[in-house]
Amino acid sequence: MFTKIHPMTEQVAIIMGSESDWKVMQAAQEILKELGVATHAEVVSAHRTPEKMFAFAKAAKARGFQTIIAGAGGAAHLPGMVASLTTLPVIGVPIKSSNSPGGLDSILSILQMPAGIPVATVALDNAKNAGLLAAQILALGDAALAERLESYRTALAEKVLKSKLS
Amino acid sequence: MFTKIHPMTEQVAIIMGSESDWKVMQAAQEILKELGVATHAEVVSAHRTPEKMFAFAKAAKARGFQTIIAGAGGAAHLPGMVASLTTLPVIGVPIKSSNSPGGLDSILSILQMPAGIPVATVALDNAKNAGLLAAQILALGDAALAERLESYRTALAEKVLKSKLS
Amino acid sequence: MFTKIHPMTEQVAIIMGSESDWKVMQAAQEILKELGVATHAEVVSAHRTPEKMFAFAKAAKARGFQTIIAGAGGAAHLPGMVASLTTLPVIGVPIKSSNSPGGLDSILSILQMPAGIPVATVALDNAKNAGLLAAQILALGDAALAERLESYRTALAEKVLKSKLS
Amino acid sequence: MFTKIHPMTEQVAIIMGSESDWKVMQAAQEILKELGVATHAEVVSAHRTPEKMFAFAKAAKARGFQTIIAGAGGAAHLPGMVASLTTLPVIGVPIKSSNSPGGLDSILSILQMPAGIPVATVALDNAKNAGLLAAQILALGDAALAERLESYRTALAEKVLKSKLS
Amino acid sequence: MFTKIHPMTEQVAIIMGSESDWKVMQAAQEILKELGVATHAEVVSAHRTPEKMFAFAKAAKARGFQTIIAGAGGAAHLPGMVASLTTLPVIGVPIKSSNSPGGLDSILSILQMPAGIPVATVALDNAKNAGLLAAQILALGDAALAERLESYRTALAEKVLKSKLS
Amino acid sequence: MFTKIHPMTEQVAIIMGSESDWKVMQAAQEILKELGVATHAEVVSAHRTPEKMFAFAKAAKARGFQTIIAGAGGAAHLPGMVASLTTLPVIGVPIKSSNSPGGLDSILSILQMPAGIPVATVALDNAKNAGLLAAQILALGDAALAERLESYRTALAEKVLKSKLS
Amino acid sequence: MFTKIHPMTEQVAIIMGSESDWKVMQAAQEILKELGVATHAEVVSAHRTPEKMFAFAKAAKARGFQTIIAGAGGAAHLPGMVASLTTLPVIGVPIKSSNSPGGLDSILSILQMPAGIPVATVALDNAKNAGLLAAQILALGDAALAERLESYRTALAEKVLKSKLS
Amino acid sequence: MFTKIHPMTEQVAIIMGSESDWKVMQAAQEILKELGVATHAEVVSAHRTPEKMFAFAKAAKARGFQTIIAGAGGAAHLPGMVASLTTLPVIGVPIKSSNSPGGLDSILSILQMPAGIPVATVALDNAKNAGLLAAQILALGDAALAERLESYRTALAEKVLKSKLS
Repeated sequence: MFTKIHPMTEQVAIIMGSESDWKVMQAAQEILKELGVATHAEVVSAHRTPEKMFAFAKAAKARGFQTIIAGAGGAAHLPGMVASLTTLPVIGVPIKSSNSPGGLDSILSILQMPAGIPVATVALDNAKNAGLLAAQILALGDAALAERLESYRTALAEKVLKSKLS
Repeated sequence: MFTKIHPMTEQVAIIMGSESDWKVMQAAQEILKELGVATHAEVVSAHRTPEKMFAFAKAAKARGFQTIIAGAGGAAHLPGMVASLTTLPVIGVPIKSSNSPGGLDSILSILQMPAGIPVATVALDNAKNAGLLAAQILALGDAALAERLESYRTALAEKVLKSKLS
Repeated sequence: MFTKIHPMTEQVAIIMGSESDWKVMQAAQEILKELGVATHAEVVSAHRTPEKMFAFAKAAKARGFQTIIAGAGGAAHLPGMVASLTTLPVIGVPIKSSNSPGGLDSILSILQMPAGIPVATVALDNAKNAGLLAAQILALGDAALAERLESYRTALAEKVLKSKLS
Repeated sequence: MFTKIHPMTEQVAIIMGSESDWKVMQAAQEILKELGVATHAEVVSAHRTPEKMFAFAKAAKARGFQTIIAGAGGAAHLPGMVASLTTLPVIGVPIKSSNSPGGLDSILSILQMPAGIPVATVALDNAKNAGLLAAQILALGDAALAERLESYRTALAEKVLKSKLS
Repeated sequence: MFTKIHPMTEQVAIIMGSESDWKVMQAAQEILKELGVATHAEVVSAHRTPEKMFAFAKAAKARGFQTIIAGAGGAAHLPGMVASLTTLPVIGVPIKSSNSPGGLDSILSILQMPAGIPVATVALDNAKNAGLLAAQILALGDAALAERLESYRTALAEKVLKSKLS
Repeated sequence: MFTKIHPMTEQVAIIMGSESDWKVMQAAQEILKELGVATHAEVVSAHRTPEKMFAFAKAAKARGFQTIIAGAGGAAHLPGMVASLTTLPVIGVPIKSSNSPGGLDSILSILQMPAGIPVATVALDNAKNAGLLAAQILALGDAALAERLESYRTALAEKVLKSKLS
Repeated sequence: MFTKIHPMTEQVAIIMGSESDWKVMQAAQEILKELGVATHAEVVSAHRTPEKMFAFAKAAKARGFQTIIAGAGGAAHLPGMVASLTTLPVIGVPIKSSNSPGGLDSILSILQMPAGIPVATVALDNAKNAGLLAAQILALGDAALAERLESYRTALAEKVLKSKLS
Repeated sequence: MFTKIHPMTEQVAIIMGSESDWKVMQAAQEILKELGVATHAEVVSAHRTPEKMFAFAKAAKARGFQTIIAGAGGAAHLPGMVASLTTLPVIGVPIKSSNSPGGLDSILSILQMPAGIPVATVALDNAKNAGLLAAQILALGDAALAERLESYRTALAEKVLKSKLS
């Protein structure tokens, strides 16, 4: 059964391949903070720190994380490798790097996982949606969060409804 | 807090744009059945039955579904539209249709959602992974399911370990 | 039979997913104004205001609109969803967003509609052509507009004929 | 003002680059016949019979056609060239040819028209949707056709609603 | 038999869809001037001035042109349409426009001509190569030009041989 | 000045990377034979027989060839390398190989030549058009061939004009 | 310094994500056998057996492997992950899977590695070239192998030189 | 057997199609210098100096080079052509040029080599990885270099481990 996590506990881990990905990935942290979900953010590189990545993924469940958000660009292996080492839901954020054929490398490297090991992939550079998806997952066991998500949606709609075309 | 669903309750809805998508989508039902998760499967077309789609998505939470898996091909709007009408996690399965530029239409139509409304996209035609992802999400509140997922992973590894190259 | 609309009536609705699309979409309004066709422009988001989108599309015919121009980027569902809710002709304008693999997401999300629900798709970011196409459709029942379109074409040709290569 | 065409008059011209395109394009004729719209179908090649194409397009309006559906594959110039020679709405059907990079050549050759000359492009090989779009355009001036289109939509939905997943 | 053209005669026509293409296309004129080949440059739009395009192409041979260089972007129909109206060699220059999925639209619209009507396509925006190809064609009947081309190649190599990597 | 070649002389060389390309490339020989142009066909591999390729290209002009048609697939270097070793016009035929991302590799490897060395690229697998383009080039110095090309075009048009849509 | 390996020692490891990849990958073993290089082939899945993959890569150097050939399809992480865990040269073979957008997923997932961790990528499904590249690497320290490679090249050329076009 | 090269000997040749490629390619020289591997860098154009390219490739082994790094953009033939003329390992660096469809031309022109002639392709513009791959190859016969590579990897990991997300 689902054990209610203390609000102060970091339920979502946000990891990324390099410091430079933070400018994209911090949107995940921001939206989760706004929704009252505490997060842990860290640089974990599949290629440059594979041991750390292994250890991180294997320990994630025991540390109390409920969902992992992983962002990476190019031959983006971080989300898929972490997913192969845990049964926690892993959300992948493809990051468009400068020397990329339009970002298709990041998208396909994260999305096209083989049968057995899913990664929940969101849109290119869309870390905000990764944060929201994590919240929607957590909200299955947290009615208050579910309500905050409903309010977020209402606010989203209201902002659109107030749009003015000059 | 997470309300433990009776095992017989259908926790996951599997919807798709047309009957012909079932040959791809039934893999989601199969893996979930194998993992002891009851599912509800139904044809719901965003384009041909928009009212039904609307009603389905708006009622999904009240009916007790925890996660929705939506498969569609071409200009695949079903996952994203359902996601816009519920805060339940929505998993999108891009289906490669015959008259498609390599399946990129389905992938990009489902993946590239705007900020605010995420869809957890899995690989092209990979409904099995959609089922697994749904199970991983439900397992956050169901320790027995989490164990079955671990067993599934072990079996997956064992099958690979027994591979023979003749 | 075709009911001649009073010239002051807004015959064409121009809708778009967000305020930021207006910088692309206003070209539709401009060319239609130039051709003497009154338009109504409004932000209607398929994903953030699905109910409004539903209501808008269902009421469009009764409000007297003859054609709807819908612009959207990324997983661009607005044109197709509106098309599924009305039998008025719907013209889709794919908008190239910043985090897109070259605009292919918008193009394919709008173009690749399933059999039964067509969207008349125009070129990437080419709202002017959406306006012209709407005018060509209206001109089938409006001889004066048809003449203005012919004049527009003549002017277009004349401008080319006066080109100078320094 | 819109002149009501006698039901027997051929209101829609269906043209295509070669005989072999007919297996794709006849779906336009079929759906229009079903909707009670008479059509004229003919092979008109932009590249092999440019004079005929020119003459056809220039005369189309005078012959009473209200809309032209043009299908072509590869470097598909027929829809765009006909559109440049008439102010009737032109609907383009990209046809996927055998030696094509996934059909992207036909799609982009028809879709990416320059400002001034729109082509209403439908999905790859989707001549049925071209026929429906033509009917939706004609229905603006033909209330009976509009009703038949509404019935078509209802039937489309009913078929989906009766879907069975074995 | 090949009629030796007076050196002052314009042997190569350089046409393009709009004035704005000239910044790309003038490279063809420059290299041909450098090689002693006189050219005629003119804006001829397939879509905005189809009659002029028709007349131009039909008259090209009689005016003494030996080869036509045609540049266009997007749904680039000019090279292929001109090629369908003359048996002179037509060289197509795909021009990358701002709202293009990476220039693939121009490339494929020019390159993928159907059997019967070839267009000699060169690289994206590479009008210089179009000029050189025209010169190579003319040089088959002009030994002096052939020699100038050989010298050009030698100079090209020498420039590379003198490269310095600091 | 252009030296009239005896009709029996092989004016066009058709080369290709491997025997298996001949099923595509023979269409060039057939159309040229039909137009009365004698050809020489040979396997010349840029990668497996680079010395032969070098020797072939350097000697081509002296052997009396007027134009070279080169077909290749994948990383298709043959047309461009031959073009770099002769100033004869080189026509490239991209061949779609079985393990190719849609033929884009062959197209781009042949088309995207750097400034200085053009290759006249034709459509994917379209060796017939390569033959026709060669004939159009030769016809600049051969009035009889020019007439045969005009007849070919007329026949092409007539075949289209006789098309029947059952 | 390079330690001459006993000819019987397996110098090259050939690994792949699943048994089904063997039909593609065995070409690497065959060409290496032909060149007198002993190989070890094994299924090692990055996603389904990450621990085995880790252990394999970390132990590879100590086991005496000189080069690793890794084949994988879809989100192909095996070559890159192994490369991150050893400083032996790793050669990646992208495998085209059935539900892939043209094989671009495998190519980009293997090729687009971040700075620091290279993978020597060969063509789609081209395991033979992976074997040859491994042999070329080993031949730097094995003069006899270098000679066999030269002979292989000679044979390759001779086969081309004997080609017949019927 | 592997002949230990004197440290001062240039073991790796770095070649590129034009001076302008040096801004990308010098990263290969820098990393190799850092690792104590002497390099020779030179402009060698496959298309503009084919004879030099031929001579360079044929002489490379005799000059003592152990590996060749070749960078090129567009229709990038340099790596593949050099590879066809030597049995030394050739590493290809695809360079993204300004008028390219996203760099896919360079990638596919270098990667998609036919069976028989491999090129070890690295990521777009990633000359650093080409240098590292060359070092990994040389390290098979140079234990000190192997140790320096291990240190480089350690430093790479340490840098990541010290990352701070503000």
